[in-house]
Amino acid sequence: KTAVLASTRPLSATADDIFAAKDTFARRHIGPSDADVEVMMKTVGVKSLDDLVDRTVPHSIRLDEPLDLEDALSESEALTAIRKIADKNQVMKNFIGMGYSETTVPPVILRNMLENPGWYTAYTPYQAEISQGRLQSLLNFQTMVADLTGMDMSNASLLDEATAAAEAMFMCNGLKNGKRKKFFVAEDCHPQNITLVETRGGALNLDIVVGDPKTVDFSGEDYSGALIQYPNTYGDVINPEEFVKKAHDAGTLVVAATDLMSLSMLKPPGDFGVDIAVGSAQRFGVPLGYGGPHAAFMASKHSYSRRMSGRIIGVTIDSRGAPCLRMAMQTREQHIRRDKATSNICTAQALLANMAASYGVYHGPEGIKGIAERINGMAAVTAAALKEAGFGVSSEQFFDTFSVDVSAKGTSSTAIAQACEAKGANVRVIDDKTIGLSFGESITKDDVVALLEGFGVSGSSLDSAAASAKIGFSDDLVRTSEYMTHPVFNMYHSETQMLRYLKSLENKDLSLNTSMISLGSCTMKLNATSEMMPVTWPEFANMHPFAPAHQCLGYKEMIDSLHDDLAKITGFAACSAQPNSGAQGEYAGLLAIRSYHLSRGDTDRNVCIIPVSAHGTNPASAVLAGMKVVVVKSDDKGDIDIEDLRTKAIKNKDKLAALMVTYPSTYGVFEEGIKEICKITHDNGGLVYMDGANMNAQVALTSPGHIGADVCHLNLHKTFCIPHGGGGPGVGTIGVVPRLAPFLPGHPVIPSGGEGAGVVPKTTGAIAAAPFGSAAILPISWMYIKMLGEPGLKKSTQLAILNANYMAAKLAGHYNVVYRGRDGLSAHEFILDLRPFKHTGIVEEDVAKRLQDYGFHSPTMSWPVPGTLMIEPTESEDKGELDRFCWAMIKIREEIDDISEGRVAVEQSPLKAAPHTWEACFEDEWDKPYTRTQAAFPAPWVKANKFWPTVGRVDNVHGDRNLVCSCPPMDVYTDEHIAA
Amino acid sequence: KTAVLASTRPLSATADDIFAAKDTFARRHIGPSDADVEVMMKTVGVKSLDDLVDRTVPHSIRLDEPLDLEDALSESEALTAIRKIADKNQVMKNFIGMGYSETTVPPVILRNMLENPGWYTAYTPYQAEISQGRLQSLLNFQTMVADLTGMDMSNASLLDEATAAAEAMFMCNGLKNGKRKKFFVAEDCHPQNITLVETRGGALNLDIVVGDPKTVDFSGEDYSGALIQYPNTYGDVINPEEFVKKAHDAGTLVVAATDLMSLSMLKPPGDFGVDIAVGSAQRFGVPLGYGGPHAAFMASKHSYSRRMSGRIIGVTIDSRGAPCLRMAMQTREQHIRRDKATSNICTAQALLANMAASYGVYHGPEGIKGIAERINGMAAVTAAALKEAGFGVSSEQFFDTFSVDVSAKGTSSTAIAQACEAKGANVRVIDDKTIGLSFGESITKDDVVALLEGFGVSGSSLDSAAASAKIGFSDDLVRTSEYMTHPVFNMYHSETQMLRYLKSLENKDLSLNTSMISLGSCTMKLNATSEMMPVTWPEFANMHPFAPAHQCLGYKEMIDSLHDDLAKITGFAACSAQPNSGAQGEYAGLLAIRSYHLSRGDTDRNVCIIPVSAHGTNPASAVLAGMKVVVVKSDDKGDIDIEDLRTKAIKNKDKLAALMVTYPSTYGVFEEGIKEICKITHDNGGLVYMDGANMNAQVALTSPGHIGADVCHLNLHKTFCIPHGGGGPGVGTIGVVPRLAPFLPGHPVIPSGGEGAGVVPKTTGAIAAAPFGSAAILPISWMYIKMLGEPGLKKSTQLAILNANYMAAKLAGHYNVVYRGRDGLSAHEFILDLRPFKHTGIVEEDVAKRLQDYGFHSPTMSWPVPGTLMIEPTESEDKGELDRFCWAMIKIREEIDDISEGRVAVEQSPLKAAPHTWEACFEDEWDKPYTRTQAAFPAPWVKANKFWPTVGRVDNVHGDRNLVCSCPPMDVYTDEHIAA
Ligand SMILES: Cc1ncc(COP(=O)(O)O)c(C=O)c1O
Ligand SMILES: Cc1ncc(COP(=O)(O)O)c(C=O)c1O
Ligand SMILES: O=C([O-])O
Repeated sequence: KTAVLASTRPLSATADDIFAAKDTFARRHIGPSDADVEVMMKTVGVKSLDDLVDRTVPHSIRLDEPLDLEDALSESEALTAIRKIADKNQVMKNFIGMGYSETTVPPVILRNMLENPGWYTAYTPYQAEISQGRLQSLLNFQTMVADLTGMDMSNASLLDEATAAAEAMFMCNGLKNGKRKKFFVAEDCHPQNITLVETRGGALNLDIVVGDPKTVDFSGEDYSGALIQYPNTYGDVINPEEFVKKAHDAGTLVVAATDLMSLSMLKPPGDFGVDIAVGSAQRFGVPLGYGGPHAAFMASKHSYSRRMSGRIIGVTIDSRGAPCLRMAMQTREQHIRRDKATSNICTAQALLANMAASYGVYHGPEGIKGIAERINGMAAVTAAALKEAGFGVSSEQFFDTFSVDVSAKGTSSTAIAQACEAKGANVRVIDDKTIGLSFGESITKDDVVALLEGFGVSGSSLDSAAASAKIGFSDDLVRTSEYMTHPVFNMYHSETQMLRYLKSLENKDLSLNTSMISLGSCTMKLNATSEMMPVTWPEFANMHPFAPAHQCLGYKEMIDSLHDDLAKITGFAACSAQPNSGAQGEYAGLLAIRSYHLSRGDTDRNVCIIPVSAHGTNPASAVLAGMKVVVVKSDDKGDIDIEDLRTKAIKNKDKLAALMVTYPSTYGVFEEGIKEICKITHDNGGLVYMDGANMNAQVALTSPGHIGADVCHLNLHKTFCIPHGGGGPGVGTIGVVPRLAPFLPGHPVIPSGGEGAGVVPKTTGAIAAAPFGSAAILPISWMYIKMLGEPGLKKSTQLAILNANYMAAKLAGHYNVVYRGRDGLSAHEFILDLRPFKHTGIVEEDVAKRLQDYGFHSPTMSWPVPGTLMIEPTESEDKGELDRFCWAMIKIREEIDDISEGRVAVEQSPLKAAPHTWEACFEDEWDKPYTRTQAAFPAPWVKANKFWPTVGRVDNVHGDRNLVCSCPPMDVYTDEHIAA
Repeated sequence: KTAVLASTRPLSATADDIFAAKDTFARRHIGPSDADVEVMMKTVGVKSLDDLVDRTVPHSIRLDEPLDLEDALSESEALTAIRKIADKNQVMKNFIGMGYSETTVPPVILRNMLENPGWYTAYTPYQAEISQGRLQSLLNFQTMVADLTGMDMSNASLLDEATAAAEAMFMCNGLKNGKRKKFFVAEDCHPQNITLVETRGGALNLDIVVGDPKTVDFSGEDYSGALIQYPNTYGDVINPEEFVKKAHDAGTLVVAATDLMSLSMLKPPGDFGVDIAVGSAQRFGVPLGYGGPHAAFMASKHSYSRRMSGRIIGVTIDSRGAPCLRMAMQTREQHIRRDKATSNICTAQALLANMAASYGVYHGPEGIKGIAERINGMAAVTAAALKEAGFGVSSEQFFDTFSVDVSAKGTSSTAIAQACEAKGANVRVIDDKTIGLSFGESITKDDVVALLEGFGVSGSSLDSAAASAKIGFSDDLVRTSEYMTHPVFNMYHSETQMLRYLKSLENKDLSLNTSMISLGSCTMKLNATSEMMPVTWPEFANMHPFAPAHQCLGYKEMIDSLHDDLAKITGFAACSAQPNSGAQGEYAGLLAIRSYHLSRGDTDRNVCIIPVSAHGTNPASAVLAGMKVVVVKSDDKGDIDIEDLRTKAIKNKDKLAALMVTYPSTYGVFEEGIKEICKITHDNGGLVYMDGANMNAQVALTSPGHIGADVCHLNLHKTFCIPHGGGGPGVGTIGVVPRLAPFLPGHPVIPSGGEGAGVVPKTTGAIAAAPFGSAAILPISWMYIKMLGEPGLKKSTQLAILNANYMAAKLAGHYNVVYRGRDGLSAHEFILDLRPFKHTGIVEEDVAKRLQDYGFHSPTMSWPVPGTLMIEPTESEDKGELDRFCWAMIKIREEIDDISEGRVAVEQSPLKAAPHTWEACFEDEWDKPYTRTQAAFPAPWVKANKFWPTVGRVDNVHGDRNLVCSCPPMDVYTDEHIAA
């Protein structure tokens, strides 16, 4: 017998060939098979992927060399590699506080929400009918926050406490009609809160006064508002009553940055008359994550609702009059208000808000109070033990945090901090002689015994200390008002109940585990499990953002490596991951540009040219960065009108700070003139800010740096696979050219950029509360890049372009595809024009809702062009899914024709009645010209995996007119429940 | 200001009070709140939980003392504790083989199936209409196994390869009508396969001949069958053609234990005419788990289908003629055939079969082949490198495993094994001079370099070795037939596709994350996340069952501790976790009893008395253990007829081996006579086997040992929270009195019981392939016990009893609750009689299916009493859910009254049309006397969380008459898909 090959592997295989990993990632990430690609290229009319690229991407901007990235790792190789990196992080017990507390994620929430694609792959709930689950959860968040803070209403999350504080400052400014230029910040706020208010206020030329709240003088009536921290950063709980009175007497609004957990015991800001409360919901079951992502909140009086930033969920009714939820008052938001907006928030922290809300639902008011009391008790007993041992403990009233004066014991705070670290505990070094200690839920007695040993105090002293400990607060500070009385916080306290509740919400929502979400400009691609897995490993999840750097070497290695790769991908010199959304990236980039100009004494450069087609965050960010927006027109192909640009650039030659441009354009076109656009800007003294939202069409083919931009942001939650989480988290990493590198964001506590340790570049400041923003989700993008390598990234980009052009080709006979590029091809997304059907009475919303009957999420509606749908399939969708979507669109076109050709009256059309719920289809009277089956099963394949909208078409106007944005009494839903 | 308490905590709190963990588990595990318990007790008519217990559990058997268990740990404390234990396991790369291979679990399957309660909390798919998802996946498993083995059909999993081999032996015996007493086992089978066939054959007095397949002589025509291992345990691939011919010529059937992965390259058993193929699907993406759980399979020719053991999924049609799936030919199974059964399999390995099937779906035939070729290549190159270095490598043709003779190098195999271990690699020591090396998917080049270093060979030799390596097989062994050509294995290869496929299957199935599954005798309680989390930690998941003991100290500690706790809970002296289902526990217990009698020279004791009401596995296990079943009657209260028992015991005085009794009885009653029953048995020389399926009503109130039993099994997948997984995995731990302890199961490779190292007690043998059975899921039960402690366990039992009695009380006016105990109370389950409605034409199935319209899974149907439903709510269900279920049952009673009172004709009743699918409700013609809304939304709360059955009522008869048990061609489903 002779050995023969049973396989096609050549006998001459090398050992490396033989050992080559089989669990390669590109084929898992990319939807279409190679065979499908062949068919699709025929449909598009291109010969090869290279041919496709040649015909879409301008030759002048193509990369000359492949990106110099490491070879792709297979999934298991990459997991092994990141496991090694994770092991370089040292997980300690953290007593640092400063807005970040140890917490316990309830396992049922961890597994069924944070680790569940049914929750994390959803999009912002613009399509309310297929989003009632997360809308309900976000409403729970609002209700919980409003209750705990004692305010009338809350929004559905902001990015972090520090930006929320800055947003509140804008709100105060706006409520005073911009007439009061001063804003007070109490010096006992968390340092990052102070810095961010300074950064943001400074950019708007507001006068930020940091000082002692006891002595500040408001009588000049020139302060719009004042920020206090309650309890303050050292843990002291100071009754704000007099401060509020003093401020209000002078017409100054009061903002309190506060701690939700403490408010279950403490009289809430609302009860003291505070106007706006902000804070972080992190300690409600969201991992520390080295700083994020966490949900911040803003709560206020009802009368300020229309000034509030961030998304707000509200109650309304559907087409059948049934109560339902949707995002309220969107007219406040940047996508509507653009340069009139007072906030640039777009992506926020929905997933984390949902986690915090679920924590509230699971624990209920009693559970929360029990946890709070335990935290307070632990802190009090520890303070008493230290006092007994001779340390100075000045704080009289505190919830979870107090300061320790170590000088009486003849030691220094750094010596104590080191001793504690050796015992596994991180403490806060406030100054040479003062240590701050802050307690969180997951601290145990063993942890405190170890901590005390760091202070040279025996753990056994806790027992005697327990007798002398001062637990609780003075009468004037004790909470007397109820909270979280709504049934939703009082009926899901067993794990079975909670599991079913989470599942019932998830079931109402369409996410990527059901079908394609082809939202143009949002890049809803695969969020692979292997990318997601490291996020919840303790070595990434349980790190405090202000832990000593030598404990965080894994994070450092991972972030440095991600920055390096992203710098190569963008063609830039340096990156910062601090901005925790695309909009924050824009803001950071514009501040860097502004700082650069200022550093050269170029103080007048404050004009920012922005095309009319830009995303709303662009003008909003520019205005917040202190710039004046000059709008440049588009030509009839949707491209920037270069002559208009030239005119305006020249006209503003001495004042031109920047041009903002999205590339490929927001119309999904690789504008041929992009190099010229950059040149015109540069020639007139401006820098080019590239909005990288559409980076998925550039990666490995071209790059912002190569094209000639000076800075760009990347939505890592688009191109680089961070899931959208139903409206956040996100990361808006920015990349910059060398001359801008010194102006990357800094941080007041931890070095994060090009500057020195803890130095905040005066002119840029800090952009987010945490030095590396939402650090815990950066492993997702790291894994993505490492698993694809250059060939996989390039193929992904090619396929993103192919998928879009394939769909455009299939739909071209049925719809007008507008704004195409050279050769009639699109980039990675394309726009279908629905305006020609206006005469039939059918508008884009009807098509969007009808798609739900097919189990599809609508593409982006009426943006960037009203009356259109913008479709971005991404490379992760396979041909079958693209075909099904096109099939649905073609059938919808037939239904439009039924109207225009007089077969069906528009008000009788399934397009108007869409989406069809069970209930609608179950009416015994059915007077439609189509059958129930046509209503709900308009295509044969729908049966195999029907997704049911749970409410009929929502009435936005009704909701905005009758704003209710906390959970309405349970009897609204009574018939869904039975009383036994 | 004076500090006052904001809370109710006494000022005199101790430090331990203050630090006490808040994340206690009992209140999460138990459904009803304390307030609800008060209301429920009123309904039942008891004053307190103690009163309830006093009135249900006979005083004579109540425990005198609380169980002496450790204090309960909170969820996070328990996770910390088990994390420390896990860290005592050393995870190595395993080259041991012997039926357990390194594998890579695709992350998308890990997270969305193994870690997803939507999959793991489901029950065996008896209710086919709400189980089409896992039925489809199990059909995929059958198709994949049949294809790869080259056989006509496969079952849907068995417990492990070794028991599957033994089951095949029974099958051969049966196919030869029991007339051939000899069965041949090739000596080059895996040792555990040999042992299990010996154990099981021995128990039935079959003559098991272990020998050389080349020389065995079948010509006496007295062998029913012969088992070979292909490839054999040393890795050699020996062409079985001549062996098969020799056997067949003598009318002897051939069973091949085989390796699915190798069959993608090797000619499969079916192509050689083998009659039955068995094996393990572990290496298809199921973690090693220190031995299990894994899915085994059995495949055979079509003509043997009715003899096959285990569950078989088949195709049939529903009430509307649409194709659908269900469990086929249940008449083969123990629950029907009882003491005529040739297998006692009940719980199998559904979840793991689904994982393996998903692995097949995700990789497809090309992917599997690629993985196999890489494995083969790695083995070949390593063999070549060792050969070059002067080691003896005898194997000529091998797939993944070969033997190395180390004597030529003047070393010993133990020395090499130690050197390899130091490099992180476990190898097999075959004898003093022979090492076995076996390769699995997750092995990398680095691993092999380390392994070679253990042999003193440089890793760089791999490169030259690659040139000389013998890859592949001789022509006669090369596979030429196709496999896995069905579209299902060729359309979900991107992660997005796979995610959606898994989700679409999950959506079709009702599991505990939707609603109560009140299956009597099945104890479908909460499977808490914190219990589940450790299962997939690498330190538990990636351990080889035959790894050296000193690497497995974490497993040892955890298993010892669990055994200790279970011994206390059962009142026994020793436990064994080896049996991997309840039925295997029964078998192990009966073998222990038999061994005990034999050890005393009591050779005639082979009568096993079993009540008529016993579960089918009891008589089936008794027969397999070589016993003769004598049935004892029940009296009209459902209790054992004690006089009948006494008569039969006395009559069989000299032959009485055992009595099997379930307690509380299978009727859900704490029989008052249980002590007398034990006494009668003992007085007549028998031992008492207690079936612990109903242990959930005993824990901490009484115990089998306390009652007087000698051995019991515990279904850890019932009382101790291992999830049912849609029909497995399970664990059937047994506990025994001291005199039976020496007869606990042993193992041929690893010490597992009371016996010495690697010694198999001759008379008991080994029960499962792995020494500790399904070890990887034991942490679930460990966590459960540690988190509840004695008080929590006791309260759980009390609540299980209260919940059952509350429901019984609420339903009593509407249905006859039969077989109640003293004071008219039940234990933890109760039986509703539907026989009185027979005259209306309504049978129990109609009620079961109508419950689906309400979103409920039916209780146990027609067992133990035909024409009844047996309801077991468990302690984890809250009052609201119990109320909703009762509400549904009461409405159903009204629908029955509509018939009996002449308002509705039976064939027009919603009970007969149930379950109602979308499609049924969407018929444009609706000629029913009830509305569509009444059909599908029969209660108001159904709307809030409607669960839709995806097919109408299944036609079992049609399916069994037209048996199709692999995936039918895709065009059956065509209209669900579109061709582009
Ligand atoms: C073109 C463009 N720019 C900016 C943004 C804002 O990004 P983010 O939502 O992360 O703040 C978006 C978001 O959709 C966008 O599409
Ligand atoms: C009373 C009884 N005995 C034995 C068994 C068999 O257990 P297993 O399915 O784990 O083999 C069952 C299973 O439901 C049972 O209810
Ligand atoms: O299948 C069971 O009978 O549990």
